[in-house]
Order: sequence, then C-alpha cells, then structure tokens
Amino acid sequence: MTFASRGANMPRLADFNQRVVLETIRRQAGDVSRTELAELTGLSPQTVSNVTRRLLDSNLIRETGRAATGPGKPRTMLRLNAGGGFAVGVHLDPLVIDFVVVDVSGAMVARGARTTPTVGSPRHVLSAIATSIKQILRKAGADHTAVMGVGVGAPGPIDHANGVVLDPPLLTGWRNVPVVADLGQRLGLPVMLEKDVVAATIGENWARLSDETASFLYFYLGTGVGIGAVLDGQVLRGASQNFGEVGHLVVAHDGPRCTRCGRVGELGPLLEPTSVVADGVAAGVVAPPASAAVDDVDARFREIWDAAENDSAAGNIVENYISRLAVGVARVTDLLDVREVVFGGPYWSMMAERVLAGMPATLATEAVLRSVGSVRLSASRFADTGGAMGAASLVLDHALSVRPDFLSLRP
Amino acid sequence: MTFASRGANMPRLADFNQRVVLETIRRQAGDVSRTELAELTGLSPQTVSNVTRRLLDSNLIRETGRAATGPGKPRTMLRLNAGGGFAVGVHLDPLVIDFVVVDVSGAMVARGARTTPTVGSPRHVLSAIATSIKQILRKAGADHTAVMGVGVGAPGPIDHANGVVLDPPLLTGWRNVPVVADLGQRLGLPVMLEKDVVAATIGENWARLSDETASFLYFYLGTGVGIGAVLDGQVLRGASQNFGEVGHLVVAHDGPRCTRCGRVGELGPLLEPTSVVADGVAAGVVAPPASAAVDDVDARFREIWDAAENDSAAGNIVENYISRLAVGVARVTDLLDVREVVFGGPYWSMMAERVLAGMPATLATEAVLRSVGSVRLSASRFADTGGAMGAASLVLDHALSVRPDFLSLRP
Repeated sequence: MTFASRGANMPRLADFNQRVVLETIRRQAGDVSRTELAELTGLSPQTVSNVTRRLLDSNLIRETGRAATGPGKPRTMLRLNAGGGFAVGVHLDPLVIDFVVVDVSGAMVARGARTTPTVGSPRHVLSAIATSIKQILRKAGADHTAVMGVGVGAPGPIDHANGVVLDPPLLTGWRNVPVVADLGQRLGLPVMLEKDVVAATIGENWARLSDETASFLYFYLGTGVGIGAVLDGQVLRGASQNFGEVGHLVVAHDGPRCTRCGRVGELGPLLEPTSVVADGVAAGVVAPPASAAVDDVDARFREIWDAAENDSAAGNIVENYISRLAVGVARVTDLLDVREVVFGGPYWSMMAERVLAGMPATLATEAVLRSVGSVRLSASRFADTGGAMGAASLVLDHALSVRPDFLSLRP
Repeated sequence: MTFASRGANMPRLADFNQRVVLETIRRQAGDVSRTELAELTGLSPQTVSNVTRRLLDSNLIRETGRAATGPGKPRTMLRLNAGGGFAVGVHLDPLVIDFVVVDVSGAMVARGARTTPTVGSPRHVLSAIATSIKQILRKAGADHTAVMGVGVGAPGPIDHANGVVLDPPLLTGWRNVPVVADLGQRLGLPVMLEKDVVAATIGENWARLSDETASFLYFYLGTGVGIGAVLDGQVLRGASQNFGEVGHLVVAHDGPRCTRCGRVGELGPLLEPTSVVADGVAAGVVAPPASAAVDDVDARFREIWDAAENDSAAGNIVENYISRLAVGVARVTDLLDVREVVFGGPYWSMMAERVLAGMPATLATEAVLRSVGSVRLSASRFADTGGAMGAASLVLDHALSVRPDFLSLRP
C-alpha cells in the first residue's frame, strides 16, 4: 500500500454513518433509543432517523417497544436483528479443527470440532472441512441463502491477497495451499482467510462493548504462541497480514534449542507443550508420552498443569512457564505500548487461575512503561473457541464494521 | 480510548476532502493539475475545483502556470505554497539539542544545535531551549505570527495528555517535567510533545511521496535505541503515546549486564556506546575515554567505527554490533510484519555503509517471514536531523494531514 489519499463523497458518507449507527447499536449492552444514538454518534436527530429507517428496512435492526428513559414521552427502543444472517468460522489448528456458526450479533448458534487429520493431503483436509461446514449449517438450521460467508483462521504465514496458506511450521505438509479458492468452490460461499491469531484478535475486538478499552494485546496460547494487537480500535494486521510472530523472542538464557534458528531461551520453544513435557518427564512428574504426536503430548502437558497444585516439581515447571510468559508479555506490551492483555487459545482455561495470580508481580518489575500505568490481564470472552469465533467475525467485521478507510472512494 | 463510534456530516466531509487534496498535492514529486487531482483522489472535477479554490484562498497552495500534460488544452498546475507558514522542531537528546525551522512543505529553512547542559535543573534547560528557539526564528526570518507551533521530541516515557516528560533513563534529573506548559508560557506559541522516536517516525511518514510504501519500521540509533512503526500510512503511537521500547529485547546470550533488569544480551545495552567503547578498550582498539560523560564516550565510539576499515579487532566489534542489530531488526519486523526498515539517528551516517552491506545476509536467515518477502533497508531522508525534523513535522502533521478519525464529529 502506498500513500494515495482518496476523497469521500455524499453516498460514501451516508454508508459510513449507517455503519456508525449500526455499530453503536451493536456495541451497547442493552437496547438504545434514537435520541441516545444521536448523543452517542454526534449525528443530528434527523440523520439518525433517516439512517435507522434504512437499517430497519434492511432487517439489520428491529424495534423492541417503548421505554421511559427520562422525562419526555417513552422512546422506541432499537436493537440489532440478530437473526438477519449467519457466518461460519473455522479454526484450523494442528490438533483440532473447530467450527462455529454465529448470527449477525456474533452469538454462537452451533458448534463442532474434528481432530485434524494427520494423514492425507491438505486437499483431503479441505474436503473434510467442507463436509463439516455443511453439517454444522444444517445443525444450525441456517438456510444457504442466509449464510454471509465462511471465515478461516489458519497458522501463518499466509498469502492474504491470494487466500493461500504458505508454509506454517506446525502444520506438516501444508505448503502454498489455496484455502480460499478451494473451499469457495466446494461450498459456493464467500471465504475469507486470516492468520489464526489475527482472526482471534479481530473476534475479540468485534465483540467489545462501547465502554471497553480499544487498545489491547491478544496473547494466544496453543500448540504455538502468537499475539494480536488492537490500537485505538484498529486491529494491526501488518504489511502482509502476518502480524504477531513472537515465537523467536529470547526470554531466557536456558531452555530448549530452537529447531529453526538454533538459539536457546526463545519464547515459542519454551512454551511449546513438547518442551514442557520433556521437563516434566525429566523431573519425574509425568510418564513419557505414548508418541510424539500432538495429542499424546497434549495429554501429558495438561497432566503437568493438573499436578502443579500438589506436586512441587510440577509446580516449579508451571511457575517457570508463567515467568517466561511474563517476560514475553512485558517485552511486547512495552514495544507496542498497550495497557491490557487478553489471553486466549486452547490452553488458556487450564492456565488462567495461576497466570492471573502469578504474572502481575513479574510484570510490575519487568515492564519499562510501569511509570505509565500497570498492565491489566484478562481472559478472552470466548474461552477455548476464540479461534473459530474470530474466524466467523471476519465475515461480520467485513460486512458491518466501521473502518477508517470505509469512506474513501475506491480506485 | 473506547469504542464510541462518531458519525460524520457534510462540513466534516468538506474539511476532509480539503485535506485529501492538499495531501495529494504535497506528496507529488512535481506540480499537479486539477484533472490529475480528480484521478488521484477519486473526487469529482467539480469537487476538486471547489476545494482547490478554497486552498488558493487560504494561501495553502498556489498556481504555477500552464503545462501541456496530454492531448487537450494546457492545464493550470498547482503546488504547495511552501512559504505559507513555519514550524519549529526541537530534539532533546542527552548529548545535544537540535533545532530546525521548516516551512509548510517540510523543507528546512534554518538549523541550530547546542550541547545539552549537564548541570542545572530541567527548568534551566527549558529556558535555554526557549532562547535558542527565539534565536533560530530570527535567523530564519520567520515572523512570530507566521509560526504555527513548536514540536518537541524527547526521550520517553512521556505523559502525552499533559505534555510532561516522565522519567527518561538517559536524561539525568528529568522527572515529571511539564515541557508543553513551560515552553508554551515562555514562547507564547502552541507546543506539542512526542517521544523522540515517535516524532522522528511521524517526520519520515510526513515526508514520503505518494508512490512510496506506507508501511515501514523506523530504527533510531543514538545514545539509546528505539523504534517507530507506520502501518498503512498510520503511525503507531500506542495507548499512552510511548510506542517503541525495544532496549530490553534479548538478542544474544552474552554482553553487558542491563543496569535496570540485570540481564545480559539485551539490545539496548549491547548497542550503547558505553558498552561498545568498553569492548574497544579491552581489545586495545581505543584508549579509555577521558571520562564517563556522554561526549567523551561518543568520541571513542566514533573512533572504533572509523578504525574498523583497517583494524581487525575494531572490525570484529563492528561486525558483532551489526549482527546484534540485525537480530533485533528481524524480531521486530517479524512481530509487526513490515517489509521495510528506515534507519536514522545521530549514529546512522557513520554506520550506514557497513550496515547496508552486512545486514541483509543475517536478515535472510533470521527472519521468520522470509517466505513473505525480503526486508528492504534504507536510510532516513533526514540523515542526522531526523529527531528535530520529526518534531517540526508534529506541527505540520496536526495542522494539515489526513487522519482517519478526522471526519468524526467530536464529542
């Protein structure tokens, strides 16, 4: 992208204000009146009246009756018409493929999962994904015509412009796989692809209410680690939509050797289940996993966290894990200057209690920007489904969100 | 900041399009006609005609005669009216304070510098800065009424909302110094404060022409190191405007111990002149500096780089420096997913040739995103004045640039 500035005209302005009003309705905790919308958006009552008329005509919002919200006469309240359409989200993880169907409000209406096939070509996996999508749409009772599209979150790096998964290190055999073209053809639906953690971050951003902070870091804890970032409500995607590679940040002077660059002490290898399980086996906390397969390692990894409560050797491994994670969080929050970190990914719920208890003390000494304020830690609102919910939000975000460039006349 | 979306109206739209047209004129390498402006901005010829009329009336642009640019009749060409106003830039560095005066086009019309006083209170330093600003404005022949404001770039962290320098580690005795209020009172001019590297990045972004890449990393090499980032034309400032702390990234398993967190191998301490000079002294490349003062250390640091051509011990120190810098660049370009790095700061010109020759090979093996494309390395267009030019650009950027939130109705 270059610096070509594009102007705006009145039709773009009208579309923009329609998105602003829709987004304002959507981000309220409850219903909202036209008078409140005018106050919240800065738009004139006349403009709000025109815009809400168009939104009602398009079935994007609905009236929910009258409420007495102040002195004058009762006001007609508005809310999003959640049933106006559906979006599918697919999270392709090395261990499991998660599926969700959401309505226009972003609420989950169906959910499914299947183990990621470890044999067969990527094309075979995509065929299985297409079958699962058809099944879950039937389960959700979503008519094909009401489905706005399918979002896919996949391990990076990706070629976003062409909808291709390039060469993710943790997804064996996947190299230059045209996910968007392949799934689009199989399903006859628009398909959008983002890097998994970017998708999860877009989902988290999409779901925030109007009074929540609009700058935060998203820290994904799964088979791999990655981050996403939102500054002033805008998700950072990077020049090639591959934002958030943090696995090679060095956070310690010991630990496993990175198989890619040969260094010890990198965040990714340190937090990988494989290396934690190796430590657990060496310390006699768990038996060696039945095989090197991700699911066998996953089981042992969870055993170690379970054992940490009563077994001091397991406790040490877990404390070590948290302190390394804390150093990574400090470095990245300092770099990006964000004051809030949201944790997500399949391992988060297992780790939440201990991380939230143990990390603030480390951050208070590690963070350079502590004079600016402390870093707030919280959990993703989607628990273990953040990847798939984020993927579904790609479709909603594209169709409905306010984007700063939305006004600009396209070349 | 929260998610409150604000709408736009027709007066905002008119102002927005005026900024778009002004920015488009400004970012052209040569003069531009109204017909070209319509093509470039997507605006109708009628809108371009109205907007350029307003810009001519405000003396922000001027007509430069007619040119035959195609088949039809010769077109009247437009360019920025560079003499329409002035901005002052001040870069407060631990070693030296740089001053520039620029015109509306961002071209430097005067330049000055003074050694940073190492004795006396910050208030005393600010008094000296105000005196220097008055002197340089006289030198530039800039009438007080034509001065749009003063931009100050200072080491972070800063309290941006209140215009206060908080507690920069390299600026001894500076703690909660109200730079904006103090200088504003002394000068009777608007004053804007940004973290030094953020200011330099804004300046680099401001000066780019329309066909240049709008996503890049800015890497500042001075007494301290820091980064700035621009994604899709937007400068990342962070939640508290303190974006870009990279000094504590670990890039090696040896090196000096960080005086703050006790770790070895951190990027900031490794690249600090003090530690490089200590290596040089140990290797017999240079004599010990006369004192620990920044200017004495600075002189020896430059001697080592000068000696690297013919002295293999100095050459090793410099190669080591470049490879550590390369690891830092790889980690941050991967994290932010940018494909271009611009180097600046007072040490850059001394280092440029060797860094540009030596770094690409390291990056090619270090960068995780190499499958997405290689990272282009270049020099800041401002050479050693990037800090002060960036500070001046704060004033111009605020007054004249297209910002995505510019359309929004303010609360």
